[in-house]
Amino acid sequence: MRLYDDPIAPTPRRVRMFLAEKGMDIPKVPIIIGKGEHKTETYRKLAPNTRVPALELDDGTVILESVAICRYIEGIQPEPPLMGTTPKEQALIEMWQRRIEFELLLPMASVFRHSHPKMAALEHQVPEFAAAQKPIAEQRLALLDEDLARHEFIAGDRFSIADITAFTTVEFFCKYGGIPLPEGLDNVRRWRDQVAARPSAQA
Amino acid sequence: MRLYDDPIAPTPRRVRMFLAEKGMDIPKVPIIIGKGEHKTETYRKLAPNTRVPALELDDGTVILESVAICRYIEGIQPEPPLMGTTPKEQALIEMWQRRIEFELLLPMASVFRHSHPKMAALEHQVPEFAAAQKPIAEQRLALLDEDLARHEFIAGDRFSIADITAFTTVEFFCKYGGIPLPEGLDNVRRWRDQVAARPSAQA
Repeated sequence: MRLYDDPIAPTPRRVRMFLAEKGMDIPKVPIIIGKGEHKTETYRKLAPNTRVPALELDDGTVILESVAICRYIEGIQPEPPLMGTTPKEQALIEMWQRRIEFELLLPMASVFRHSHPKMAALEHQVPEFAAAQKPIAEQRLALLDEDLARHEFIAGDRFSIADITAFTTVEFFCKYGGIPLPEGLDNVRRWRDQVAARPSAQA
Repeated sequence: MRLYDDPIAPTPRRVRMFLAEKGMDIPKVPIIIGKGEHKTETYRKLAPNTRVPALELDDGTVILESVAICRYIEGIQPEPPLMGTTPKEQALIEMWQRRIEFELLLPMASVFRHSHPKMAALEHQVPEFAAAQKPIAEQRLALLDEDLARHEFIAGDRFSIADITAFTTVEFFCKYGGIPLPEGLDNVRRWRDQVAARPSAQA
């Protein structure tokens, strides 16, 4: 199998971190979003959603959507578990994974897409929408600090896919997305440094 | 266990349909979004995201996020499978589930939230954003018609959670969300009528 991958965007990084945590290394095909390579006819045939990443299996099946790709990897390589093992644990990790996506990643990505000059060519930008989403993202970062005061990792006392989603989100959008991490938030900083020290953070 | 449920909103309906497909009936506690019952202090203590639905287990654990609730139900009641059984099938169903969420549900919900008078009290509305999202939603409905020309159900030849997500989305936002189903789209109509005929569509 092989992974269609962009080295800068936060979403393909989720899959690379997930693979690294599993100790897996698979061939990668670069699709550089900054050069518009995700919009070519060739790539569109493979990935009709024109999004990166995509995983192509040896039988030609293409799996789109980073979390669906991670689900496949978890299925073929269950250790170490990153999506839970019991129904309750699986549900709680999925709950946190999704809460981070909808409550944090989505507003942060909306600010970036609707205000960053680099996104002007890819998006019908609505600056007023970016302005309305920014305080929502900042409020959620403050709540994340409260969450991380209660437990070591996002979904509890064990590293999971929810940490990968949150870490790649905070890393990218706080550095490049126009939403610098607010002062304070010591628990977010403690957790971020802890995840950054894992070998998978280099993936 | 019991489900905190709103009878009108599309997201809790996903869980009710999922339960009905499993032949399960569990106690429900109404939380009427139209009356602001999801914003009370009592409900916020249970569901800090102030969203409906929420599933409370007998041990007091609360699972938020409809798809995470469905994951739990799939775990404790695997038959009939609605989220796949092999790693590849699970990944492809999750891919379609997420593609429908991000490519169709999200733009449709954005139009509704940012333009419907009923949402004015709940949302900082940006009408220009609604206007920009409407053609995206309509284009994705046209693509859905092409998808459903190729396979009977959203994720292939078997009914799955992806159909529940797509059906509850189309039903709600085409009827009440200001995006009536465009003319034509015969495959979408065939599939919608087929899903509407399932007993679970009454849930």
